[in-house]
Amino acid sequence: MYEVELKVRASHDAVRDRLAALDAEAVETVVQVDTYYDAPHRDFAATDEALRIRRESHEGDETARVTYKGPLVEDASKTRREVETGVDDGDRLDDIFEALGFSPAAVVEKERERYALGDYTVTLDTIADLGEFVEIEREAPESDLDSARDGAIEHLRELGLDPDDQIRTSYLGLLLNSSQ
Amino acid sequence: MYEVELKVRASHDAVRDRLAALDAEAVETVVQVDTYYDAPHRDFAATDEALRIRRESHEGDETARVTYKGPLVEDASKTRREVETGVDDGDRLDDIFEALGFSPAAVVEKERERYALGDYTVTLDTIADLGEFVEIEREAPESDLDSARDGAIEHLRELGLDPDDQIRTSYLGLLLNSSQ
Repeated sequence: MYEVELKVRASHDAVRDRLAALDAEAVETVVQVDTYYDAPHRDFAATDEALRIRRESHEGDETARVTYKGPLVEDASKTRREVETGVDDGDRLDDIFEALGFSPAAVVEKERERYALGDYTVTLDTIADLGEFVEIEREAPESDLDSARDGAIEHLRELGLDPDDQIRTSYLGLLLNSSQ
Repeated sequence: MYEVELKVRASHDAVRDRLAALDAEAVETVVQVDTYYDAPHRDFAATDEALRIRRESHEGDETARVTYKGPLVEDASKTRREVETGVDDGDRLDDIFEALGFSPAAVVEKERERYALGDYTVTLDTIADLGEFVEIEREAPESDLDSARDGAIEHLRELGLDPDDQIRTSYLGLLLNSSQ
């Protein structure tokens, strides 16, 4: 499966009103702390890959997941291969990665307020040191990427947002840019 | 923590009788399928490291764990750093490793019958294509490695086994040797 995802900068208050008007369902609010790794044998910035451990807190529960993101397969919608699985202990997996020569390169802290809107997930993201963003996303098989992207654009418009404002840079990239 | 581990070839029937006489407690029998990986940036055979995903079946339950084993820190007892955590989906972690350039190098299939003997775990291992072995092991902090190793030797003797028969080669190494 691939992830179709569009992201824009947007003040959350107005978007919350539109979500309510569209009967979107408030799903959950989570806090995520993402650690991204540099590889010992590849320049992930050049290969456009990412390796991440995400620690998530949700109503007192702490979970951890590891995710590999492959290079973009479709640039307009930021579509890329994602492979992910839960892990019992994020700190131990961090130890394993570091023993293998991977090193923590950056940390991104987010508060994410999630809504279900049709087949899509709309997330109001507050990113430490960056501000407020809205993401819309859906998983789709490769054969269904075009229609998944068209649907995401349509939903963005319904939320009063302009798909042309799409930010293709990841939060990680924005943070690295802002610190330069 | 470090793992102190001694292993000898031994027919299981005689050892089971000694375990019963010593009031060892039968803990469980599990089936393990271990996949070992080659790294894209290091020769693990030369650096004496290992990266493994273990799928374990126990009374119908399937679990998966990832383990990194560091180089030997004390050769006599095969002591090395081990870092391990459970993962929700071993196949997905395999996908992540392969996307990062790690490749499955060998598979070891074991049936393991475990007993608790004092502070130690005694395991009667039946290894596909290799035969029957007995392992005795215990975790220990670095400051306690010598006494942990002495205790393992003593227990091996109580089981009617000769510590001088110790096999320092891993099952993986024995399998690779036997296939040459």
